[in-house]
Order: sequence, then C-alpha cells, then structure tokens
Amino acid sequence: MADYKAPLKDMQFVLNNVSRMPQLAELSTFEDATPDMVSAILEEAGRVSAEVIAPTNTVGDEQGVRLEDGNVITPDGFAEAYQQYMEGGWGSLQFDPEFGGQGLPYSLSIPVMEMWQSANMSWGLCPLLSQGAVEALYLNGSDELKKTYLEKMISGEWTGTMNLTEPGAGSDLSVVRSKAELEGDHYRISGQKIFITWGDHQMAENIIHLVLARLPDAPPGVRGISLFLVPKFLVNENGELGERNDVQVASLEHKLGIHASATCVMAFGEKEGAVGYLVGEPGKGLACMFTMMNNARLAVGLQGVAISERAYQQAFWYAGDRTQGKAVGFNEEGPILRHADVRRMLMTMKSLTEAGRALAYDACASLDFAHALDDKVQAAAEKARAAYLTPIVKGWCTEVAQEVTSLGVQVHGGMGFIEETGAAQHFRDARILPIYEGTNGIQALDLVGRKTLMDQGQAAQAVMEEISQVIAQARGVARFVTAAEQLEAALQAAKTATTQLLGDSAENPYFSGAVAYNYLMMMGTLCGGWELLRTALAAAESQAAGETDPYLESKQLTTLFYMDQILPRYLSYAQMVSAGSTSIMAFADEHLDSSYN
Amino acid sequence: MADYKAPLKDMQFVLNNVSRMPQLAELSTFEDATPDMVSAILEEAGRVSAEVIAPTNTVGDEQGVRLEDGNVITPDGFAEAYQQYMEGGWGSLQFDPEFGGQGLPYSLSIPVMEMWQSANMSWGLCPLLSQGAVEALYLNGSDELKKTYLEKMISGEWTGTMNLTEPGAGSDLSVVRSKAELEGDHYRISGQKIFITWGDHQMAENIIHLVLARLPDAPPGVRGISLFLVPKFLVNENGELGERNDVQVASLEHKLGIHASATCVMAFGEKEGAVGYLVGEPGKGLACMFTMMNNARLAVGLQGVAISERAYQQAFWYAGDRTQGKAVGFNEEGPILRHADVRRMLMTMKSLTEAGRALAYDACASLDFAHALDDKVQAAAEKARAAYLTPIVKGWCTEVAQEVTSLGVQVHGGMGFIEETGAAQHFRDARILPIYEGTNGIQALDLVGRKTLMDQGQAAQAVMEEISQVIAQARGVARFVTAAEQLEAALQAAKTATTQLLGDSAENPYFSGAVAYNYLMMMGTLCGGWELLRTALAAAESQAAGETDPYLESKQLTTLFYMDQILPRYLSYAQMVSAGSTSIMAFADEHLDSSYN
Repeated sequence: MADYKAPLKDMQFVLNNVSRMPQLAELSTFEDATPDMVSAILEEAGRVSAEVIAPTNTVGDEQGVRLEDGNVITPDGFAEAYQQYMEGGWGSLQFDPEFGGQGLPYSLSIPVMEMWQSANMSWGLCPLLSQGAVEALYLNGSDELKKTYLEKMISGEWTGTMNLTEPGAGSDLSVVRSKAELEGDHYRISGQKIFITWGDHQMAENIIHLVLARLPDAPPGVRGISLFLVPKFLVNENGELGERNDVQVASLEHKLGIHASATCVMAFGEKEGAVGYLVGEPGKGLACMFTMMNNARLAVGLQGVAISERAYQQAFWYAGDRTQGKAVGFNEEGPILRHADVRRMLMTMKSLTEAGRALAYDACASLDFAHALDDKVQAAAEKARAAYLTPIVKGWCTEVAQEVTSLGVQVHGGMGFIEETGAAQHFRDARILPIYEGTNGIQALDLVGRKTLMDQGQAAQAVMEEISQVIAQARGVARFVTAAEQLEAALQAAKTATTQLLGDSAENPYFSGAVAYNYLMMMGTLCGGWELLRTALAAAESQAAGETDPYLESKQLTTLFYMDQILPRYLSYAQMVSAGSTSIMAFADEHLDSSYN
Repeated sequence: MADYKAPLKDMQFVLNNVSRMPQLAELSTFEDATPDMVSAILEEAGRVSAEVIAPTNTVGDEQGVRLEDGNVITPDGFAEAYQQYMEGGWGSLQFDPEFGGQGLPYSLSIPVMEMWQSANMSWGLCPLLSQGAVEALYLNGSDELKKTYLEKMISGEWTGTMNLTEPGAGSDLSVVRSKAELEGDHYRISGQKIFITWGDHQMAENIIHLVLARLPDAPPGVRGISLFLVPKFLVNENGELGERNDVQVASLEHKLGIHASATCVMAFGEKEGAVGYLVGEPGKGLACMFTMMNNARLAVGLQGVAISERAYQQAFWYAGDRTQGKAVGFNEEGPILRHADVRRMLMTMKSLTEAGRALAYDACASLDFAHALDDKVQAAAEKARAAYLTPIVKGWCTEVAQEVTSLGVQVHGGMGFIEETGAAQHFRDARILPIYEGTNGIQALDLVGRKTLMDQGQAAQAVMEEISQVIAQARGVARFVTAAEQLEAALQAAKTATTQLLGDSAENPYFSGAVAYNYLMMMGTLCGGWELLRTALAAAESQAAGETDPYLESKQLTTLFYMDQILPRYLSYAQMVSAGSTSIMAFADEHLDSSYN
C-alpha cells in the first residue's frame, strides 16, 4: 500500500497565489495568519496526516465499522487517531476564540481538512461533519445553546452530525416527517433518519445531533421544518454529561465504499421521545441547515480533490516502480511511466487534481473575505462569489474524482483490480461524492437556477470577468499566449451558453433542468483552466525572479497539458447545452422499456 | 434487486438490420439460421438467462468463490446453472458439427453470450473463456488433440482457460518465463501464471488449460513462446479421465468485483512437471493465442454492453418506482424519471448501450462473412473489417460500461451506494473490463498501430466509406436530415484526425502513443452514432410500412438523443488528438512528484 505525503508545496503555493492568503493576513481579523504560522500549521498537519491518520486507511476499509449492543465499534487505530487530532487542536483552527477557536482563516483550515480526507476519508468524515455542525450552531443557535455546546464541539471533545434524510425524503426535504413536541424548556423528538454519517461511535464522549423535524402545528412543505439539537448524552447544568438520550442507532448500512465510516439509521424517540432544543426560529430549519450544507458542499468538493490526490500519488509511485516493456525512445525495459499513454493518464490525474484544489481553495477564500472585509459591498460580492462557485466545486471536483480514481486503478493494470493494491479502495470510496450533500444533479440545478437564473447571470458574469483578466495577463507572457487563446475560446463558449440559458429558460420550462449537468461540467472545466493558469503565471513569475524549484516548472507544464488535453472538453459540453432539451424530453415513459415487451 | 429481462426486440432488430442475418442465412454455410430458428434460440436463451442464471448474480457476489484443499468452491446455484447451460447445448451453437457443434453463425451466439454476461458476469466468464479456448484449439491444434478434446469442450462437459500472464509478464508477454521440456510424446510444463480466470472449479469434469511457455532452446522474446494444452485430469486413450495432472491453484485473488469468478494464481509443475501437449508450431504460441484473444476481445466488449444493459434495466425500473419531488410540468409528486436530469442519465445509459450493442454485433458478423463467403476478396475485406473494429469494440464499449454503470449508481441516489441495492455490484464488476484481455491503452495502440498505420489507413477508410453511405441515406429521410449533418461533421473530424495520425506519426515517434486513447474514443463515438443511425433508418422504414411497435419509435428517439447529447464528444477527442504529444511528453519524471519534496 502506498503511503500518503501531503502536497505541501502545491497547497502553500495555491494558498498564496489563489486564496490570497497574504491579503487575508493584512486584515485585522486574520493578523495571526503570518507566513510562518501558515507554514508551521501545514507542516505539522502534514506529519499527523501521514504518520497518524493515513496508516488507518487500509485497516479501516478491511475491518469496517460494526454495531454491537447498539454501539458503533470503529476499526483499530481510529480512536487513537481521533485522540491525537483532538489533542492537537486541529478542529478549532478557524473558529471564534470566544468559544475556544484559534480565529485563523477558514482558508487555512482547508488544506488541513484536505489532508485528513486524503489520509482516510472514512475517518475524516467525522471531523468534517462536526465542523459543519459547529458552523450551523454558531450562526443559528441561542447564546445558551452555544455556551453549553460549542466549546466542546470546537475542541473536538464532542462531535456533531446532521440528520436530514428520511426514507421518503432524500433530495426533496419538504416531506420530512419527524416530529417535535414542546415539553417544558425542551422538545421531544421522534422519527427515523437514514444515511446519518458517524451517527454513533466511541471516539468522543458525546455526539451532538442536529435534526430536522416538524412542530405539531407546522404547515406542510419546507416552511414547516425546524432544526433541533439532540445530544446523545444530556448535558447537566454544570456542563457534565447526564442521562443517555432517547436516540439509538437502528442499523448500519453495508456500502460500496467508506466502509470505516458509520452510516447509520437513527431512531429518535422510540421510548419517551428524544430531548431536543430548537436551533434558530421555528420553520427556519432548512435555512439553518443550509448554513451547514453550503460549507459541507465545499468540503465534499474538497474530498474529491483529496481522494484524487491520494489516487494520483499511489498511481505515479507504482508507475515509477513497475517495469514493463520498452517505451518509445528507450532501448531497454523500464518503468511504465515512460509510456506515452501512461503519462497521459498520470498527467490527466495530476492536472485535474491541481485544478480542483485551486478552485476549491479559491471558493473557500471568498468566505474569509466575506467575513473579514469591512467594506460591505466588497464583502457581499465575495459572498456571492463563494455561493456561485460552491455547486461547481462540489459537482465538478467530485465528478473529476470519479475519473481520477478510475485512472488510478487503470494505471495499475490487473493489480488495480486486486483489493490489496489499494487503488480500488479510492475508487470505491470516491463513488459517494457525487451523491451525498446534494447529488450532482441537484448541484447542477442550483448552479443554473439559484445561482444563475435568479440573479440574471450577475455572479456568473463577475467570475467570467475575472477569467478575462487572467487571460489578458497570460497574453503578455510568451509561454502562455496559446494557453490564453485556448482559455479565451472556452470562455466565449461559456458566455454563449449562459446567454442561451438566460434566454431559452424563459420560453422553455424544461431547458434549464435538461442542460444543467452539462452546463456545470462546462463551467467546471473552464474554471479549472482559469485557476491553473493563475498558478502557472505566478510560477513563471517566481522562475523569472530566479527561483529554480522544479515545482515551478511542473506547475507550468501541468497547465499547458490541461489546456491541450483537458480543456477541450468544453467543446462537447457547450454543444450539448446548445442542443437543449428537445431530445431529452421527447421520450415518453413507454419508450424506456419498449425493448422488453 | 431488479430482475433481468433479455432485450429480445433490440437484439433481434440489430441482428437483422446490422449483423445482416438475413444475408448470412442465404449462404449455404448458415442455411439453418432461419428467422424461426433465430427467434426460438433467442427466446429460450432469454428464458434461461432470466430464470436460471440471473438469480445467481447477487448471491454470487455476496458469497464469492473460496479455496478449500486446493479446490475452488463456487457460490450456491452456480454448478446447477452450469449444468442447465451444458444440457441446453448453449456452448455449441457456433461450432463445427464435426466436433458436435451446431454450425450456426457466430453472430447468433453473440446475443446469447450477451445474455449470460448480463445475467451474471462472474459465471458467464466460464463459458466465455471456454469458447475462446475451443477457437484456439480448433484453428491451431493437431487432429489428434482436436479429436481428444474438442467435442467435450464444445459440449461444455469440459471447460477451458487461457494462461498468459505471469508476475513479470503482463501487457508485455515477451518476457514469459514458464518452461516446457519434451518427454516422450508430451512435454513437462512448469511455471507460475497469474490472473487465470476460472483456473479451477467443480462445475465441469475437466478443465483444459492453454498455457504459454518456452522450450529449452527457445530464443528470447515473443518468438520463443509456444502454446501448450495442459488438462487438469489427463485423458486416457479411451477418452476417460485418468490421473490428476501437476497443476494446482496456489491462491485466489481478492478483487474489487466479479467476486464469484475465480481469479487464480496457477502453479504448473511444482512436483514432476505438468503433462502438456504442443498446440501449433513451436515459437508460434503468441499467434495461436491471438486467435483466441481476438475473439475474447470482442467478447469483453460485449460484456461491456451486457453489464450496461443490466445497469440500465435496474436504473429505469427504480426511476419509475421511486417517488421524489414534483417535476416541471407536474402538479404532484411523481417518479423520478420525470425529472429532466434523470431522463438525461437514463437516455445516456440507453443510447450508449444500444450503440455498443449494434457495434459489437456488427464486428462479429464480419467474422461470419469472412468465414462463409466464397469470394476471397470479399472474405478478406470482412476479416480486415472485423480486425479493425475489434479494438474499438473492446475499448469503447468497456469505457462506456464504466459510465453507464456509474450512472446506474447515480440514478439510485444514496441507495445506489448501498450494496443491497445491486447497482454498486454492476459498477464494481464492470471495472475489470478496461483492464483484462489487453488494457484499453493496448487496444488504442492496436487501433492506431497495427490497424491503421500498418495498412496506411485502408481499413479505416473502408469503414468511413460505409459511414458516408449511411449519412447519404439519412439525408433522404426528413426526420434524420439534422442527424445526418451531425454525423457528417463527426466523420469529417475523424478523417482529419486520421490524416494527421498518418502524417505526424512518420515524423514524431511519440505521436501515435500519445493520441491513441483519444483517437479510439473518437472513433468509438463516431461508430456508435453510425450504427444507431443504421438501426434508426431501418426502424423508420418499418414504421413507414405500417408497423406500430413502440420499439420502433424508441429506437429513432434514442438515435436523435445520441446525436444531440453523446456524439458531440467527438469534438473534444478530435481537439485532443490534434494537440498531439507535446504537452504529454514535455514532462520529466521529476515533475511528477515535485510537490512533495
């Protein structure tokens, strides 16, 4: 099994040249984020991820989680790894010092989070969801709830979950049926939730469930849904843990991947009703949950980057080791990475991973600026930018992860299909990413609907304007003149498609839904090229200033490869969008199975 | 778990309108292949595949195979299913009546083989490889070997395997090290082989291994490799089974998919040496094996179609059943197949599966014509046509299977990731297809090298001429005028790319290897559209003649969808080919890992 090494150079370079970390550190909110601090945190996280977390990945996949007497039992080493994570204060980087956080930029927590996900995605889901729960509670909870719960959740002593899905309520949460009834100063919650990640475990003392449910008099639909906090163990007034609450794991799912992440069916209130506390206002549950969901969506896109990175590392180490055949230009047998088609696969993996990383980090950085800028107009623009990029990060980076992890298998040839090799685990684990936190179909609808049609394309226009500026800059650098023209062509195609989207959607109610997926993929391909070109230009500048690190040359070559061999995908997506909904909607249901009757 | 229903209408329609079955039946060799005979065989195979084989698929995946005292133990029901397969004479359809075959067209055995693979790919690999072994022995074996072995292999009483790969000899067989030494009228074989599918089992009385090995005085490289027949049980002169031969299963692989197919490490000659018999001439082993490999490559492409079909059926039945949300144009909740994006996924699955089916069946039909035509020039042209299409069928149909089975998971949402649903099994099982029988990288090199550069593009030109004719025909049918122009544009792009391939490869030794994969995918996308258009025109003709079966309308709509939403992929592939090898080969090895140092 290949080890994991955090790609510290790329992370740091992207933080500086895409996430605008130096500018962030100039803002008073983030004055602690000095270059030395950033380096020290990344290096130590790199060590912990490689030495402590990554070794649990294979054993976790093999052992999986199991349910014993209602308790989820984790694989060997998981609890110890979690203990080190907690003791290192890794969960608190970006949170408010008032509740024990370190007050550092969210942007800085992103490469750290990427490392946990690369090291062990199953394990990493526990911190990932806990941070989402912290965010939801921090933004929506009452002072009392925050006082009681936040510090322990931020420290990692307690973990958090999100309980949305029910058997009949998946993508459409409006039909959530779980109930909440007032009883004194709290509510009694009852109902069944499915697909609850890390709904139980023994790695932390307590688990704080955030649960969507309906009050008795609530209207039907999304306006009747409220959010509740339901702790596994009740918390006494002195802050100590009290009685076990009426929430149980009913069963665990047997899954294609992430075997070591507990995916629970949760039963709330099978006895007297689970004690819960209202978070935010009644009927605003979905809005509260969305503050958590949006960050979780960025985090899932980041998981796509993380698992792609892991698959790439494993593949290129294998390709440098495995000897097979004489490559063109060589007189003797050599490693398979000499073969042009293997290089093509490795470069595809590398360029997509690095494009995804830059894009994901960039979107997250806008949230920091939105939070820390004094200028309200600028802050609002950053917020809109992050909101616009979120479905692209989630959708595109997770689709990319399918391709990259599959190529990881392919580079290994027959060995890739053997579980002991480890490449197959990444492929299996990655398959959840286009599904959870809103399927990529939902992301695509979000991009074309809420994020583009709703503001008449303003946010899209702003991003395209940024792309134009990078193209203009590239035109002035000899090595990137062709790349600039390639990206310009993709940009023009995206503008045409956006104009068509805005126009045709008004006439044809099916148009936006039918083209959404391909539109998202086109925008992802374009944005990936844009972000890579930004990093390539920065790398060229450093080289021109005399720096000789091969990383700088690699970044430029990776970008040129992307422009030649990946960016052309926009041509297909644009053509498919322009074909519209006709041939998709022409089908009657009977035509789907007419071959079998 | 969804059932399997053989898509009899599509199979029969493709046989008649693409495989040219009516013309085949006019040839004296195949005069038994009357429409009634064809229908009767397909219907009965459909029944057996659905009722006997398909029910073993899930249990096979769950139980897997295991090794006990050196014997491979198969999952529940596998042996009984094999017994029915054998008793039905299903393995003998296309073989020579001299050895107990039924003398029917290979083309007719293809939908039957597709059904077994859809029903249970793990189980289906046993007949699939046995038929390849029959083919290799029939074409290369001595009369004596054929007399002793062929009849029992054709009847299915004995099964066959192919033993090529060794730990150091995967894609590059020139370094095979297994040895064969003459001893009286036979040889003693020794060596280790890996990835041997169905290397052992208890479903048949005997197993006939075809094994690549070297004679003591053999030159190095591929010219030193010979082919040997090594039976599990020696066969006495009276045809009865004698002693156990010195060949053993050393271990079974633990795989991502096809859990119920035994993938064996085989140890030959660990004691006195395994008794083996030379097949064909010394030093011609690879050529003999290739007669088996070529058919096996078509069969693996067919497996891609088969698993895509299975995944599609499961997905659309689910999508018709699962209620979630109000689709555009509806006032109440309804099945998810009403949503445009779900339709897009289902139609993508359907159109790719049907395009692949037509292409695979068509390539196989050429082998029948090559065999049965009296005119030697025509026969040679059909042979070259089949040889040209083979890497496209293997490469493209198996890449398509990755996409279709992944969409099958996606249509199920969260349920797709749960193993009990069954969609994930198809996704796991399908992942072997781009790897075995020559990775798709090898297929791509075969297409650009042996099949295009070697004959200066003649075979490619002939297929493109056929495509032109279909386009010309479509231009005369109002409904397909646009489709004709869409396909024409793709054809022109393919011609340009082929011209560039022929030109640039002469100057640049890296060019063909660097562009091979994208060139193959472009040709597959083009050929898929061509074959669908052929079937659509035939369907339109039947409709014009008064037939009203919804299948006919469905076929045309599927084709129009393909032209709008799938064919545009050629744009990307063509652009990537035209970018050539520069950005792929610019990379030094140090640039692949410069982010980690």
